[in-house]
Amino acid sequence: MKVGIIGATGYGGLELIRLLHNHPEVEKMELFTSSDEGTIFSSRFGHLFTIHDDSLKKIDKDTLASFDVVFTSTPSGVTGKLLPTLVGTGPKLIDLSGDYRLKQPDLYKEWYKKEPAPFELLQESVYGLTEWNEGQIKEANIIANPGCYPTAVLLSILPLIKESLIDANNLIIDAKSGISGAGNKPSQATHFSETNENFSIYKINEHQHIPEIEQAINLFTGVSTTVTFNTHLVPMNRGILSTTYSPTTSGVTEEQLFECLVETYKNNPFVRIIKGASSFGTNRVKGSNYCDISVKLDERTNRVTIVSVIDNLVKGAAGQAIQNMNVQFGLSQKTGLDIVPLFI
Amino acid sequence: MKVGIIGATGYGGLELIRLLHNHPEVEKMELFTSSDEGTIFSSRFGHLFTIHDDSLKKIDKDTLASFDVVFTSTPSGVTGKLLPTLVGTGPKLIDLSGDYRLKQPDLYKEWYKKEPAPFELLQESVYGLTEWNEGQIKEANIIANPGCYPTAVLLSILPLIKESLIDANNLIIDAKSGISGAGNKPSQATHFSETNENFSIYKINEHQHIPEIEQAINLFTGVSTTVTFNTHLVPMNRGILSTTYSPTTSGVTEEQLFECLVETYKNNPFVRIIKGASSFGTNRVKGSNYCDISVKLDERTNRVTIVSVIDNLVKGAAGQAIQNMNVQFGLSQKTGLDIVPLFI
Amino acid sequence: MKVGIIGATGYGGLELIRLLHNHPEVEKMELFTSSDEGTIFSSRFGHLFTIHDDSLKKIDKDTLASFDVVFTSTPSGVTGKLLPTLVGTGPKLIDLSGDYRLKQPDLYKEWYKKEPAPFELLQESVYGLTEWNEGQIKEANIIANPGCYPTAVLLSILPLIKESLIDANNLIIDAKSGISGAGNKPSQATHFSETNENFSIYKINEHQHIPEIEQAINLFTGVSTTVTFNTHLVPMNRGILSTTYSPTTSGVTEEQLFECLVETYKNNPFVRIIKGASSFGTNRVKGSNYCDISVKLDERTNRVTIVSVIDNLVKGAAGQAIQNMNVQFGLSQKTGLDIVPLFI
Amino acid sequence: MKVGIIGATGYGGLELIRLLHNHPEVEKMELFTSSDEGTIFSSRFGHLFTIHDDSLKKIDKDTLASFDVVFTSTPSGVTGKLLPTLVGTGPKLIDLSGDYRLKQPDLYKEWYKKEPAPFELLQESVYGLTEWNEGQIKEANIIANPGCYPTAVLLSILPLIKESLIDANNLIIDAKSGISGAGNKPSQATHFSETNENFSIYKINEHQHIPEIEQAINLFTGVSTTVTFNTHLVPMNRGILSTTYSPTTSGVTEEQLFECLVETYKNNPFVRIIKGASSFGTNRVKGSNYCDISVKLDERTNRVTIVSVIDNLVKGAAGQAIQNMNVQFGLSQKTGLDIVPLFI
Repeated sequence: MKVGIIGATGYGGLELIRLLHNHPEVEKMELFTSSDEGTIFSSRFGHLFTIHDDSLKKIDKDTLASFDVVFTSTPSGVTGKLLPTLVGTGPKLIDLSGDYRLKQPDLYKEWYKKEPAPFELLQESVYGLTEWNEGQIKEANIIANPGCYPTAVLLSILPLIKESLIDANNLIIDAKSGISGAGNKPSQATHFSETNENFSIYKINEHQHIPEIEQAINLFTGVSTTVTFNTHLVPMNRGILSTTYSPTTSGVTEEQLFECLVETYKNNPFVRIIKGASSFGTNRVKGSNYCDISVKLDERTNRVTIVSVIDNLVKGAAGQAIQNMNVQFGLSQKTGLDIVPLFI
Repeated sequence: MKVGIIGATGYGGLELIRLLHNHPEVEKMELFTSSDEGTIFSSRFGHLFTIHDDSLKKIDKDTLASFDVVFTSTPSGVTGKLLPTLVGTGPKLIDLSGDYRLKQPDLYKEWYKKEPAPFELLQESVYGLTEWNEGQIKEANIIANPGCYPTAVLLSILPLIKESLIDANNLIIDAKSGISGAGNKPSQATHFSETNENFSIYKINEHQHIPEIEQAINLFTGVSTTVTFNTHLVPMNRGILSTTYSPTTSGVTEEQLFECLVETYKNNPFVRIIKGASSFGTNRVKGSNYCDISVKLDERTNRVTIVSVIDNLVKGAAGQAIQNMNVQFGLSQKTGLDIVPLFI
Repeated sequence: MKVGIIGATGYGGLELIRLLHNHPEVEKMELFTSSDEGTIFSSRFGHLFTIHDDSLKKIDKDTLASFDVVFTSTPSGVTGKLLPTLVGTGPKLIDLSGDYRLKQPDLYKEWYKKEPAPFELLQESVYGLTEWNEGQIKEANIIANPGCYPTAVLLSILPLIKESLIDANNLIIDAKSGISGAGNKPSQATHFSETNENFSIYKINEHQHIPEIEQAINLFTGVSTTVTFNTHLVPMNRGILSTTYSPTTSGVTEEQLFECLVETYKNNPFVRIIKGASSFGTNRVKGSNYCDISVKLDERTNRVTIVSVIDNLVKGAAGQAIQNMNVQFGLSQKTGLDIVPLFI
Repeated sequence: MKVGIIGATGYGGLELIRLLHNHPEVEKMELFTSSDEGTIFSSRFGHLFTIHDDSLKKIDKDTLASFDVVFTSTPSGVTGKLLPTLVGTGPKLIDLSGDYRLKQPDLYKEWYKKEPAPFELLQESVYGLTEWNEGQIKEANIIANPGCYPTAVLLSILPLIKESLIDANNLIIDAKSGISGAGNKPSQATHFSETNENFSIYKINEHQHIPEIEQAINLFTGVSTTVTFNTHLVPMNRGILSTTYSPTTSGVTEEQLFECLVETYKNNPFVRIIKGASSFGTNRVKGSNYCDISVKLDERTNRVTIVSVIDNLVKGAAGQAIQNMNVQFGLSQKTGLDIVPLFI
């Protein structure tokens, strides 16, 4: 397979390079840019010295036509304009930005404050939450790779909503992310001295992943709901932990909740259901494509605490994108992704 | 004033030393121990070299009788037995452990899995949430200094419950703490390599601060409720951020919520109500006795997001203990506590 | 005393505010700016809300004339031009930037790559290494506050050079700093995800503090030498640890080295000589004005290992600046600086 | 290949599991213990759930006889006694502890304060610094895998010593390590709150890697010397950066030093020589088996600054051990180790 990456200098792009380097079916990987043509990539990212010393190539429809798949990992607002020039020219398109996730252009405008992608392409694109959309992903020309937060949240709550074990009208989702989720562009909000030794909440009730979560709940379970969703920055590089609170439906036991998750994911290698842990964290999945989920019923309140952890750059971005590529090309989902978490 | 500290080697104790060193009314500070009598304190804690080079003294009722106040900052389960030997002998007693917070011995047994303090002393002790209990604190012989989490949580939600602006039956409290909250005793759970670059949830639905929060809500607002409360460990030393979610009562506006908080705390120097911030973190209060609170109404869901930050070792422990001492001795609350947060 | 701060938004400036807030002789503190006149300072730095809610004032010679002292804490290249307009107008000037440290304009040009301050002012300025220059500081109109690294290095090696106990021709100085030393301006080099979990060397053999160290060795001991000096970034906010290696002169014992340091600093409250520690770190001094020094002789090699730690923002910047102010105004050096290190 | 691991619960052992999982020639990997027989390994290390759910096996000579290679990754003092029972029974032995590195039992006693391994086995064991000892490693029955610090140091200085480009009598080595190097056993020295936001020096002039470095310099270059070597703890999980200072021999240029390194390692895939970088850090190699080296000549002092970075758990432990296994079994050194550094 020939694989192209647009937006390689971002953290999602760098992670694609890291993971695709060890993908046994990828014979050629090239990096494309709109602005830095000719730059030797490893001169900017020294960790890739001797590993990927090629220069950045110009984004060009004709060149890209010979590729099997092109990943776009750009800031939001870019691929809405770029993909229309590439769709139908040859490669499968897997977009890691947020531009193709929301089906309604108005929602995109409202939450992203940018111009949406063309309506038809929004409809054509397939939401790449691999475990829930494998059939469509297999046939898709454009995959909208899910956001990092929605991946962690949805995998943990969709089965319980679908089986009506929890009350989808009262979902409180409190999510926490390592700072790599904010991307590679320096700003006061990501300046070391002001983020280190600091735990903060941001975009209170205004995160653009809210409509994505609501849309996906509806898509995969038929339930319409509005969720409360907030996000926090943890002084660490990688990892998302999402804590969701919900009343259970009448008479539901912790065992039922647990079994529902186990059953849902029994054939999915990357979703692991943790039994009985009262403590666990993001280092269970660091550097890997796993999503670990736990569920605890509080019998005092009849509310369930649903916790999930992912590596935001892997299952929350590059890893899931490759997982989707594997599905599209008829490979085992684990191809190139059978990675042991680093733990430390 | 003569001040004694029992349990000086813990982080709460060290913080008492740090803060009391600059308290203008404290003329003498001595450290007491049950086991390490004679040890030069600064030989174990080098940062105190030339600052506090005294040796640890033996805990002795007669010696302590001449002190104005004795702070006990020990692990739970110690002062339940120790304070009965000291009460009434002279000094005011301010207990930073959890042993005197819960009025019902059974609750203590259930949540702490230890033997409770004597019933009469539990009734005599006064809950030291300074801003809400100043009158009783002034007269108290035993002060049960609040837990770190309850301090952050209660200050932010009590006014809104008391004024019936939020639905106290649906409180979801998601709290996050720096790791100093786990104390100074090494364990796998506080081992650097396994906590750094790791964000984790612990004691899911089982934290011993749950009954303390519920008791205090009842004490200060008259409302009986069960809360959902969870705690997480942040890879940083100091700081707690608490995010509480609640439905508002009908028709309540964000402005009303904000004004309720401003009004409640208008004469309290350490509680600051933040207006309109959509992002903020624990570094606003690092090293200081402030509690900063923000409230945001989500009009999509009619749920309010209440956020508060404290330094767990200051307002969540030693600082509030000194604030209580100030109240007891008729001093301005700010005496010795007028500290600018470190920010970085 | 009336105190003005120019460059308050930098980390040195913020630290001046933090420390001066508790200085008993400072009655008025005002912040001045060249560009953001009128901005409420605490709207940008929320940790100062209710503590310093004044607006920034315009830098104005006539206004500043009534101040007792003005601290300038700007990036290098600014006060070289600014101070000539203020000198002689009234206030004592204490410059925390590097512009007045090097007596030779050519050296400044070579190492800072900027235009030097006027020659006469460079000669008039007094190097503010308090423990070594108290006499001159007392009389100075312009104080060049030392760099953070030079402070840590010089305090630990000057006594040994002066007493000819070590070979000043073979000084290898390996210094490590927390990232706040790089200032508050975001850049790739201070972006959280690329500095966290990363220990790096920078400006190899090219740090602008090299000539400052060499000049100060000469000034205070009469010895001319070139030193090897390198700097590293530690993923933490505050703290410098400097490790210096040097051959000893013939027959010198560890006891002699230790006694030399003890004797030199016996009347200096902020320099603490640690005896016999084989392990210690920057948290001994965090948040405080202390400089802790240890010396170990390796009898296998006859080389001495001299280690010192400071808080780069306190003893390495704002704290020492206030210490100098205290000297100038005949106050005890500890006034406003009697701070217990945070330790954690 | 059948591979056994003794000491799997340590960080070196966990890293062996992580890396060997993706080694294409390893068909079977089993974990052995002296004390926890029968424990399901992933019940203690949740990150391995579904990846390695086998139970720990009892260390047994006969069972191990059928294995191709056994890695021992235990604290020092264990394999000195254990390996004599296994040597000659079948498997190649690769020891990651320090017990077989020093050829002289007295030196081991002096620096490790423990009983040395049997003299004959010490002589039989081969020092596993892969790039410098490939021939002997190929034939070895017992490999003493190098220490983490010595690996980083030796790879960077051996070529320059061997070619007499630097003065081996004046080597000052200042090394810094992430805290995983201290292992997985909790202690005050590795307790989060006291290591985070703290940079410290430890074991001043007394680290047990000193004789290992000196022995290896002699082994590979014939030069006898004593080195000054100190170690520091960096508040991060992984990574070592070593800074070595040395006078150059007369007339040597930076280009010569650089070329010497390039030439030495031209056929070694894991040693990368960085040209001209004035800043770089451990994140260049995080999670990978690379050792990146830079050399800068300071013309002011004629001293060279030699910097190298490794991941202490990979090239400094498990990765190099697998590299040695590859050599022993005639595989390409990169087999199973062709890993892209994580960077963030």
